[in-house]
Amino acid sequence: MNVEILRLFHRAERDKRVTTHCGLVGRAFGASGMYIYGDKDEKVVSSIQKVNKAWGGKFFVKYIDNWKTFIKEAKNEGKTIINLTMYGIPLPNVLEKLKTENNNLLVIIGSEKVPIDVYMLSDYNISIGNQPHSEVAALAVFLDRIFNGLEFYKEFEDAKLKIVPQEKGKKIIQLNNKDFK
Amino acid sequence: MNVEILRLFHRAERDKRVTTHCGLVGRAFGASGMYIYGDKDEKVVSSIQKVNKAWGGKFFVKYIDNWKTFIKEAKNEGKTIINLTMYGIPLPNVLEKLKTENNNLLVIIGSEKVPIDVYMLSDYNISIGNQPHSEVAALAVFLDRIFNGLEFYKEFEDAKLKIVPQEKGKKIIQLNNKDFK
Repeated sequence: MNVEILRLFHRAERDKRVTTHCGLVGRAFGASGMYIYGDKDEKVVSSIQKVNKAWGGKFFVKYIDNWKTFIKEAKNEGKTIINLTMYGIPLPNVLEKLKTENNNLLVIIGSEKVPIDVYMLSDYNISIGNQPHSEVAALAVFLDRIFNGLEFYKEFEDAKLKIVPQEKGKKIIQLNNKDFK
Repeated sequence: MNVEILRLFHRAERDKRVTTHCGLVGRAFGASGMYIYGDKDEKVVSSIQKVNKAWGGKFFVKYIDNWKTFIKEAKNEGKTIINLTMYGIPLPNVLEKLKTENNNLLVIIGSEKVPIDVYMLSDYNISIGNQPHSEVAALAVFLDRIFNGLEFYKEFEDAKLKIVPQEKGKKIIQLNNKDFK
């Protein structure tokens, strides 16, 4: 299953940390990468690249110029378009269908308000509960369910650092990676 | 099961939105309330109270003055103290035990760096994956597992607004609440 994220309407000042959290969750929970529409904000890209460098994997972050064209093209390429929204139908109602009908998903997460066109262009409008909360949480629970808890055991290629889980305290090991500096 | 959250080291400027997201996730996913240690930031409190007023429930937000004393007292009151950290043991390893051994949990989520004392004072240091990601996501997955997906069907007392899930579009109904203005 290949899952990509589309983060809509990023505002450099207000959303910097939340958008970075979305990217880090995407990476840690098994998505391939995140497209961002909105203010071009190199801080988000560099934060996530720094994590890739130390902790491994190839999670990408790319800015796009036109969200509507982008969604339409993704649809033409055969991707299933999923809009995560508190107004949508509960994930458990469609989860089994989503897991089997298509291997390529584009998951949309917006900042505060998303235009109605996004709802219309999407194949599924899906809620993680019908209460206001957080796109970071919605994305995490969506990926957790789609990938069956992959975040608990996923390994990352070319990681330089790895945690050894501890009951008390912190233990990080440095891996003997050829690129290690 | 009664779960309270302790958010450590809130910084008014940097963490405003992330701490608010933590509170909203706590509320939507079934926790009773959130204590905050750090900068006293009325914006976080008012954002969450506004959500309570429209969407119901009694999720509380309170500032505390001394985190160490607070954790020790919570322990003396018989609460199980859980520190969510990427360095801890994977949630699935202890989930069944947590669900049965105590009905009162205090869940700690920190901002960037949490002192080692927090690890030592906690009964459990638990990871939602051993990769850097987001305290919002960690809290969401923790509550989702502890409450068995409660976020998908939880109802809130005295709600003035309620969403009717839609395949396309948005539908909110106003409830005939005696307090409705």
